[in-house]
Amino acid sequence: MNLERTVTPDKSQQNVILLLSCPDRAGLVSRISHFVFQRGGNILDLDEHVDPVEKIFFVRILWSIEKESIPLSELEDAFRPLAEEFCASWKICFTGLKTRIAIFVSRYDHCLLEILWRNSIGEFAVDIPLVISNHNDLAPLAAQYGIPFHVFPLSRDNKETIELQEVALLEGNAIDTIVLARYMQILSPRFVERYQHRIINIHHSFLPAFVGSSPYRQAYERGVKIIGATSHYVTEDLDQGPIIAQDIIRVSHKDTLDDLVRKGRDLERFVLAKALRFHAEHRILVNGKKTVVFD
Amino acid sequence: MNLERTVTPDKSQQNVILLLSCPDRAGLVSRISHFVFQRGGNILDLDEHVDPVEKIFFVRILWSIEKESIPLSELEDAFRPLAEEFCASWKICFTGLKTRIAIFVSRYDHCLLEILWRNSIGEFAVDIPLVISNHNDLAPLAAQYGIPFHVFPLSRDNKETIELQEVALLEGNAIDTIVLARYMQILSPRFVERYQHRIINIHHSFLPAFVGSSPYRQAYERGVKIIGATSHYVTEDLDQGPIIAQDIIRVSHKDTLDDLVRKGRDLERFVLAKALRFHAEHRILVNGKKTVVFD
Amino acid sequence: MNLERTVTPDKSQQNVILLLSCPDRAGLVSRISHFVFQRGGNILDLDEHVDPVEKIFFVRILWSIEKESIPLSELEDAFRPLAEEFCASWKICFTGLKTRIAIFVSRYDHCLLEILWRNSIGEFAVDIPLVISNHNDLAPLAAQYGIPFHVFPLSRDNKETIELQEVALLEGNAIDTIVLARYMQILSPRFVERYQHRIINIHHSFLPAFVGSSPYRQAYERGVKIIGATSHYVTEDLDQGPIIAQDIIRVSHKDTLDDLVRKGRDLERFVLAKALRFHAEHRILVNGKKTVVFD
Amino acid sequence: MNLERTVTPDKSQQNVILLLSCPDRAGLVSRISHFVFQRGGNILDLDEHVDPVEKIFFVRILWSIEKESIPLSELEDAFRPLAEEFCASWKICFTGLKTRIAIFVSRYDHCLLEILWRNSIGEFAVDIPLVISNHNDLAPLAAQYGIPFHVFPLSRDNKETIELQEVALLEGNAIDTIVLARYMQILSPRFVERYQHRIINIHHSFLPAFVGSSPYRQAYERGVKIIGATSHYVTEDLDQGPIIAQDIIRVSHKDTLDDLVRKGRDLERFVLAKALRFHAEHRILVNGKKTVVFD
Repeated sequence: MNLERTVTPDKSQQNVILLLSCPDRAGLVSRISHFVFQRGGNILDLDEHVDPVEKIFFVRILWSIEKESIPLSELEDAFRPLAEEFCASWKICFTGLKTRIAIFVSRYDHCLLEILWRNSIGEFAVDIPLVISNHNDLAPLAAQYGIPFHVFPLSRDNKETIELQEVALLEGNAIDTIVLARYMQILSPRFVERYQHRIINIHHSFLPAFVGSSPYRQAYERGVKIIGATSHYVTEDLDQGPIIAQDIIRVSHKDTLDDLVRKGRDLERFVLAKALRFHAEHRILVNGKKTVVFD
Repeated sequence: MNLERTVTPDKSQQNVILLLSCPDRAGLVSRISHFVFQRGGNILDLDEHVDPVEKIFFVRILWSIEKESIPLSELEDAFRPLAEEFCASWKICFTGLKTRIAIFVSRYDHCLLEILWRNSIGEFAVDIPLVISNHNDLAPLAAQYGIPFHVFPLSRDNKETIELQEVALLEGNAIDTIVLARYMQILSPRFVERYQHRIINIHHSFLPAFVGSSPYRQAYERGVKIIGATSHYVTEDLDQGPIIAQDIIRVSHKDTLDDLVRKGRDLERFVLAKALRFHAEHRILVNGKKTVVFD
Repeated sequence: MNLERTVTPDKSQQNVILLLSCPDRAGLVSRISHFVFQRGGNILDLDEHVDPVEKIFFVRILWSIEKESIPLSELEDAFRPLAEEFCASWKICFTGLKTRIAIFVSRYDHCLLEILWRNSIGEFAVDIPLVISNHNDLAPLAAQYGIPFHVFPLSRDNKETIELQEVALLEGNAIDTIVLARYMQILSPRFVERYQHRIINIHHSFLPAFVGSSPYRQAYERGVKIIGATSHYVTEDLDQGPIIAQDIIRVSHKDTLDDLVRKGRDLERFVLAKALRFHAEHRILVNGKKTVVFD
Repeated sequence: MNLERTVTPDKSQQNVILLLSCPDRAGLVSRISHFVFQRGGNILDLDEHVDPVEKIFFVRILWSIEKESIPLSELEDAFRPLAEEFCASWKICFTGLKTRIAIFVSRYDHCLLEILWRNSIGEFAVDIPLVISNHNDLAPLAAQYGIPFHVFPLSRDNKETIELQEVALLEGNAIDTIVLARYMQILSPRFVERYQHRIINIHHSFLPAFVGSSPYRQAYERGVKIIGATSHYVTEDLDQGPIIAQDIIRVSHKDTLDDLVRKGRDLERFVLAKALRFHAEHRILVNGKKTVVFD
């Protein structure tokens, strides 16, 4: 029915993505693109950035190759010497291999529904083997999309035990990335460290304004004319992790606190979905406390 | 759990809304607000506009009264002499009485899901007794929200018959307003006339650019840097009805036609939901080919 | 030449604006609009707001009367009893009487040029009898627009003396409102108190994020994806005054600190101009630490 | 004074930009980046795009070299064989060599002021040797910025003669690019052809909506909720040229036609300035009726 779709992908081809950062020097693009060319790749998209202060080079290259001509492990082995010469942080991904994510929720449904629905129509390149919650409320929603729902009833005293159980479950399901979809609990430093730059949170304010709890109330009381939402990687410092995406909406004196919550809900859904898409499409490189997002 | 909600409505009170337009003259606000005051109303919100070219006066007044002190019919009778003196178009509504809407869909799910979900969390003041479609595809989605789903299989030859059946169903359910949530059929002039200014459509372009079919393809081929969506009341002239709400999103050379469809989907959901909220909250007055929206 | 202008104002008419706030109660709109009607006024625009938490009533009414039928002082005297009955804060203005403003600058020219140019083409209803600076740099720009330019060379030790001289100059010119157009000095509490809610500042961040100095540097180092600018009334607490207007622009990893300064410059110009227009058109009421802006 | 500036450019270095498009094939990035590397260049910025429908490759590369190590002509000669092998359209520029532009105006000052002021503070990499107009009105503004102002009084009968005189003046001043800053005349096809993709216009609507004259009036009468402005390269077909930049602003029933003109003025200034900056920084490649803008 969709007459507005056009491009039919060539089924005999698959795409490869390289994400890499290293100290800047002359010749990096030349050497890397030569590597791609030598292995029969055709570059479809290349984004490059040099941090002018830190002199760090960032690149994302998407290229197509004949399908199954090279296994991923072999490609990684072939690239390793170059990466080591450049002292690079890097990863290579096949676009056909979907990122496996787990979604953590509490009681709000909007972010969870947004992600499950978008994934159901193919907007994300992810598999979602499970949803984890400290409450039962959203089990029916997960069930509608056929996703297993696991409840871990957190209390003041059992966080360490619960997190060990959660990690076991995550590892058993080969989870790569965790999405906190308005999960109202703080993860332990140990947990955060294990999934470094692989936990995506949505904070319901325009960070760094209104960190911590009740940001809509803070915004209402300050009388701002614009509110925002921020998606970021989780680090040990609350609401201080590298920012992936932000968006805003106008408010006025007419808006009650409930209106701010309502308007903010739309922002949260969109900003978190945007951040997850960037992450799943391997578009993000972390640069210290900041991100490079090749969108 | 929601610590960010505040205002507890007084259960012994209910709210009344007057929407009125008439030729402008001195004293209108004074006379109408005096009417409200005399009947024990306290004005909570008043928006007023005078069209400087046509010299037409528009007003929306929201006031609170003691609950059940006056039945709606009595209030209308009391106001009628004033309205007739002003040669006004007007209506009075109790906010407790929800607008009854029917949603028309074809195969795209995004607008339907958006409306059903928002209504389920209380964002709209509407009742949705039924969904009508020319296809079966979205029956499961309606079922998830417990809404009866009616299929009317349209063909080239049966539009008149089908519309008569639809009208019977709509009248049997006391439907006030129809929402075309990406309904891919054109309604007959007779049908449109029956529901004048009570059919809300979403068009997937920034009207008046790209009227008609395949607006995303048109936008892609023209190379615009921004795409839009427009919600409007349906009139006999295709895509020419009074505009209620519009929104836009940036695009670039990187965006394929599929990307435009994906980005536009978000616009469509939001713009249609916004228009429906304005309509359900009695915030819209039609001014010839334009609207006055007291948001 | 401008074929797109239409409405010719009736020269025998002039407009009056009432700005008023008071504790909410039933009948306020009725009583006030009756007052307008009795004195031959025709309401052109009425905006009303009730703070649902504090139960305070705010209103702005614009009405037309026959020119010179009533002197301003007489209108004020006639309205005073009503205002006292309501325990109201209020003012009445004739739109023909322009607000007299002084602009304070340091060395950046963009905000000063923006205001002078906009005023020269009639966008603001203000008179600008003078510009004050602690540097000579912008004297030529003021001269281009024929505005007297006064330099007060501030040092660590002479702020009190200088401010006394400035106040004398301001009073001698019947200045009502001061605009800090990137004025890089902090005013004394005594000075601020004298011009309560009549000093408009532009802060080059999305407040409350990045208060104090070097907000662009702070934003750059935090890695935000959006920067902003905020115009607010100056109070004793730095960058804490009631916010009038805010706007934002997107940034990315590609933007250097210089790019943030460049992009922010545009925001500053626009947000300050917007705030000044609201103020000059008597559209702002202060509500504690917040504003009600009837735009 | 500007404490927020950081990066001090290395004075012994200069930057080179290559803009190139050609039929897509494997190895292009590798070959071109190798060329840069061989000549001692360090790539600072590389943007690449492949049109997925037309299979055309676009690239912009910015690299630094030791200053004066290579004259521009020699670099071009060295690159030519590669370009010919690729059947490419291309140009190489030194960022130190500013684009020479002429500004065409009629009577509106806002776009001219915006460009002259931005250029005066170093936002553009352009030289502006002259302003051309069919009226005298803006001569004083050009004089303020020290730019020669030439009046060519157009009438119905003399367009051909006048354009010949203008071309002589433009060629005598080695003008590369023409900016139509609300120039209210239509250029002849011959003139347009001579400066293909080197004439930048600002149209005061969100194209393709409201082509031709009086777009604000058209927008007002249609009752749109958003207005826009569009900057594009001029082609023979009026308002149909490749779009470079667009922006929008919200309007409502409160906005008169004059308000639309006022709000639109801000859009026009910004969108034209943005387009000119992209053009002057060699960020634009034309792709048929569309543009690739590497911003």
